[in-house]
Order: sequence, then C-alpha cells, then structure tokens
Amino acid sequence: MEDLKLALLGFGNAAQAFARMLLDKEEEIERTYGRGVKVTAVTTPTKGTILNGRGIDLEKALKDVASVGRFREDTEGLCQMDAFQVIEKADCDVVCELTPLNIATGQPATDHIRRAFQRGKHVISANKGPIAWAFDELKSLAEEKGLLFFYETTVMDGTPVFNLMEHTLKFCKVTEVSGILNSTTNYILEELACGKAFDEILEAGKKKGFIEADPSMDIEGFDAAAKTAALLNVLMGAGITPADVKREGIENITVDTIREAEKRGKVIKLLCCGKREGDKTEAWVKPVEVDRHDMLASIDSTTSVVSITTDLMGKLSIIEHQPEIQQTAYGIFGDVIRVLDSLK
Amino acid sequence: MEDLKLALLGFGNAAQAFARMLLDKEEEIERTYGRGVKVTAVTTPTKGTILNGRGIDLEKALKDVASVGRFREDTEGLCQMDAFQVIEKADCDVVCELTPLNIATGQPATDHIRRAFQRGKHVISANKGPIAWAFDELKSLAEEKGLLFFYETTVMDGTPVFNLMEHTLKFCKVTEVSGILNSTTNYILEELACGKAFDEILEAGKKKGFIEADPSMDIEGFDAAAKTAALLNVLMGAGITPADVKREGIENITVDTIREAEKRGKVIKLLCCGKREGDKTEAWVKPVEVDRHDMLASIDSTTSVVSITTDLMGKLSIIEHQPEIQQTAYGIFGDVIRVLDSLK
Repeated sequence: MEDLKLALLGFGNAAQAFARMLLDKEEEIERTYGRGVKVTAVTTPTKGTILNGRGIDLEKALKDVASVGRFREDTEGLCQMDAFQVIEKADCDVVCELTPLNIATGQPATDHIRRAFQRGKHVISANKGPIAWAFDELKSLAEEKGLLFFYETTVMDGTPVFNLMEHTLKFCKVTEVSGILNSTTNYILEELACGKAFDEILEAGKKKGFIEADPSMDIEGFDAAAKTAALLNVLMGAGITPADVKREGIENITVDTIREAEKRGKVIKLLCCGKREGDKTEAWVKPVEVDRHDMLASIDSTTSVVSITTDLMGKLSIIEHQPEIQQTAYGIFGDVIRVLDSLK
Repeated sequence: MEDLKLALLGFGNAAQAFARMLLDKEEEIERTYGRGVKVTAVTTPTKGTILNGRGIDLEKALKDVASVGRFREDTEGLCQMDAFQVIEKADCDVVCELTPLNIATGQPATDHIRRAFQRGKHVISANKGPIAWAFDELKSLAEEKGLLFFYETTVMDGTPVFNLMEHTLKFCKVTEVSGILNSTTNYILEELACGKAFDEILEAGKKKGFIEADPSMDIEGFDAAAKTAALLNVLMGAGITPADVKREGIENITVDTIREAEKRGKVIKLLCCGKREGDKTEAWVKPVEVDRHDMLASIDSTTSVVSITTDLMGKLSIIEHQPEIQQTAYGIFGDVIRVLDSLK
C-alpha cells in the first residue's frame, strides 16, 4: 500500500515536534499499517516552502530550522509558494492546518480547510479557529465530499476530548461542558495569589514561554471563549461562534480580589462553561470563585481540565497534567493514526 | 440482520439497570445498527433462571424482581439451570458475566468466561475477578477463538479507562497507573476526618448502601488490589494477580493519624499504584499522605480517579464524579455497543 502523504501548513514548534514524532514512530507505523507516512509539502511564510512528492527529508528540515531558522537553499523541492498554492499543487492525501491562530476571525485557516476539502483532501486541524468559527460548514463539506476531518489538538492538545466522546462514550448525549482551558490565565492567577505584580508576572511568563508576546487574547478570555465554542460545536452541535460566548477576562482581578476570596475559602479560576437545553445554548467564560477543596482549585500552572456531563454517564473530568510541546504533537500524530485506521 | 442475543449471568442491581437501559435505547440501537439486542437468558441462584430464544420480556422480569424478588412462575422459559448449564444451552452470541465477585479467587466467574469462549461465545465481564486473576489466559483464549472480550466496567464503572487507552491513545505506552479506586475506604477516611467513630461510620454507610455487609474486602485493600492488578494486566501486560500487589488497608488509620497528617497540610487517601520498567512490575495499595492542594485530596466520597502516564502523552487523569448504579449499567451497555460495532 502506498505511503500516506501529508502537506503541512505551518512548521512552528508543535509541527516540528510532530515531525520528530513521525520520524521516531516510522517503523512502528509501517509494521502496524503496512504503509508509511511521508510529508510531501511544508509551507511557512518565514521558513520557506518545500514541495517534494517523493517525501521531504524531515531530519534535514528540522536541522536547518534549528540552525538557521529556515529551510536551506540546498533543500530538494524548495520553492516560493504560499499555503493556498501548496493546497492546490501538493501531491498529498491529508492537509494539516498548523498555521498560527487568528482568534478574531479563524482566518486564513478556515479558507485553507475549505479549499483542501474542495480539492478532495482529508484535513487535520490543530488550529482551533475553524472549529470555533465555522465548524458546521466545514463538517458538512467534509461529509458531502466523503472526507475525514479531525481536530483533537484544538482543545487540550492530544488529550482525548472529542475522541473520548466519539469513541468511548457512544449513545451518551452531552448536556454540559466546563473546564479550565487557558493555562496563561491559570498561571497568572496563581502568581497573583503569591503576591506578585501583574507586570512582573507577564515578564517572567514570557521568558519561560508560558505567556505570548501579546497576551491580551488569553487575559481577556478570547482563547478560552474560542475553546468553549469549539467544545459546544463539536460535542453539542451548538453551531455557535466565539462571539456567542459571554466573555469576561481576568484583567480586573487584583491581589485584593484574590485575598478576599481566600478569606472565604475560595480560589479564583477562569472557568469556561457551556450548557444546552433544547435549542437554547448558554456559554460563558468568566473568573469564578471555586471552593478550595474543589478539584478545580487543584488545577495549577499549565495543567488543564474539561468536565463533560452526559445523560448516561453523569459527570466525568479529564485532566492534562503540565503538558509540554510533545502533547500538542501527539494530538496531530493521533489524528494521523486515525486517518490510517479509517482508510484501512 | 438478526438481533444480537445476550445471556446474562447474574441479575443484581447493575444488571437490572443495564436491562432498563437496553429497553430505553431499543429504538436508537435498531436505528443505528439495523439490528436489535435481545436477552435470551438470565440466570441467578436466588431469582431463578429464564431461557427464551425468542427474547425474554425484560419489562416483566424487572417488574417481578421489584415486586417479589424473583421471576414469577408464569414467566415463559422459566427453568432450573445454573450458570454453567445456561452457558451450555443458551441460544446467544454474547455471555455477560455479571455474577457477584469472589475477590479471593476470581471464581466461578473465570470458569464461566473460559466455558463461554470454549463454546464460541463473545464475552462481556463486569466482574473484575477474572481480569485481576486470569486475564492473560482468557485474553489468549479469546484471540485463539477469534472472539470479543470486553470488560470496561471492571474499573470505575462505565468511565473509559481501557477504552481510553485502546481507542484514543494509540501508540502510547503506559509507564505508570495510579488512583483512588475504592469508594468505601474513601468514604470512611472522610468520615473519620469529620471525627466520627469507625463503627458508627460502618453502620451509617451500610444503611446508605455505600458499604457492603462485610466491608473487610474494601477496608483491607483487597478490592483496590484487584483493580490495580486489572489495570496492570490490561494496560501494561503485567500478567500479575492481586496476590502480587503489596497491600495495606486502612484498618489501622485512626482519627489521630488523620489529625497528625492535617497538621502537616496532608490528607490520607488509599492510593493504588503500578509501575513497570522492563520486565519488572511494582504494584501497591496503601494509605498515603497527599498534599491538601493535590487533585487527589479533592476526590471525595464515591468519586474516583485514575491517572495514566504514557511515553507520548505524559500524565492524564480521568475522574468519575459520584456515580450511581446507572454508570455501572452504562459500562455493560457500552461494551454491548462495542460488540455491535465490531460485528458490523
């Protein structure tokens, strides 16, 4: 059987860790499926674009990016193409949408995915924008064309959330989801509780890589709202966008607010929640006081949790403890494995 | 397509709740799979045995048991057979092992399952005994005969634990499991912490149905050891029995021990743990002091948790919040759905 061919849109940290995982698991994949996986295209605006139907030398690509920050001139198939041209031209079975998120629009990732489906390609998205902004349309398009559409990484990295429901909780109807899904705000709230100043926390967090250069999308709750919309769209068929999620960030939380809560035995967490009753959807992100004995109070630093309530199984929670970039890579890798399983 | 036919060994609370769920989901199953599920045999030592290839009237069986504690004389197919005779004679595709657990031997459940496989029947076990005591043998027998063997309910009811690994974390190798898996001891430790006396807690717990008539199997850690063995056997191929699990119960924990721990910011929990390095397995159950801010400290009452560490996904935890009998029923129901999926 021919190798499964992937086109990667984006080659940031997660995509690089994913490429490393593909190399590490090359033999095990071939042994399990009787076919390999090869990357035939990679495109980024800053590191360059490679198109090579015979399979890109990932070891070399990773080495070049690590040493000079881009693909070197001697790379076979190096060319000047943008993501749309790559989707059009690449010899591939699956397009992997790994570009940076634009949380305010879900673009251009949504257009990338739509174009890939129109060209008859399966899609794996690690980008939550399209799932938050245009899930129903993209899902319908995939179904209409008989194509696969996987996106486990978009909420809590490779932690099974969408797969948990689809593969292990059949016949269960989701009635409510909630969780702590943004690690930046979780980290900031903890540091505030230790008495540190907001600016000081931001600076230290940026150095550690916990906090983005522009942290406003996290702090004002946009990222959490996008994840909430994604959860509701996939698990409850809500058909909403992040704009439908009532949103309050942590920008007004001070050490005093935290101390006041502590006096009452409470801890402040940025909580996401979504419910659905009949056709009515209620979704919000806001700082909430949780009891210090509550499981939610124990979710610290970069750890995250999602709780899913269903008619048949009551409330279950799944926690991802202090993930590294490898857990994001596994989310993409796991989706590739599902493609291999589905095409068996 | 013909209905899938089940023989139920046992008809206790969980089996009755499972029968109720089958009735509730009858139409949805037929719509999804183009075939129904019918129960063609039920056998218990106290309520009687029914053998009926056309399908037992579950509504009537449930009503009879609720009103007179056994199947009434006017039941079609009522007969005098034990479980082994039913396995031999029943017109069925799947044998469901739902008999009470004998934790010291895993019998007669292991013999039931062996016999069912020998007769060419798929098996669903809600009984953890066989998984803790004879997993490798039974698994090999099932594979040799090309039969299905599902047992999700044996640890944490219908919460995906085995399915989580098999269906959503492919290519991940488990390196460690741990958790709070026995709700009786968890409840007793909490009540002790409130200052209640051991005897008083047992009496109240028995009334509430949280505590068994003979609670020694829970209190001395046998139940937790059996679950630990089951986890290690299935998730790590450990090939151990509960006798290989170092076991210490909570029988020596007093209010004073708990108060001493509290002074140091700790909470005492009966923890299960299993690790595997190369061919070496280490497994134990014992009371452990956990930090009061730790997630484990928040696992209260009948709530339980299992944490699974893998090479590719680090540490994940899944929590089942305060389950009722329905969650046990769903474990069996979910396995029936997997049988339907596997035979598609």
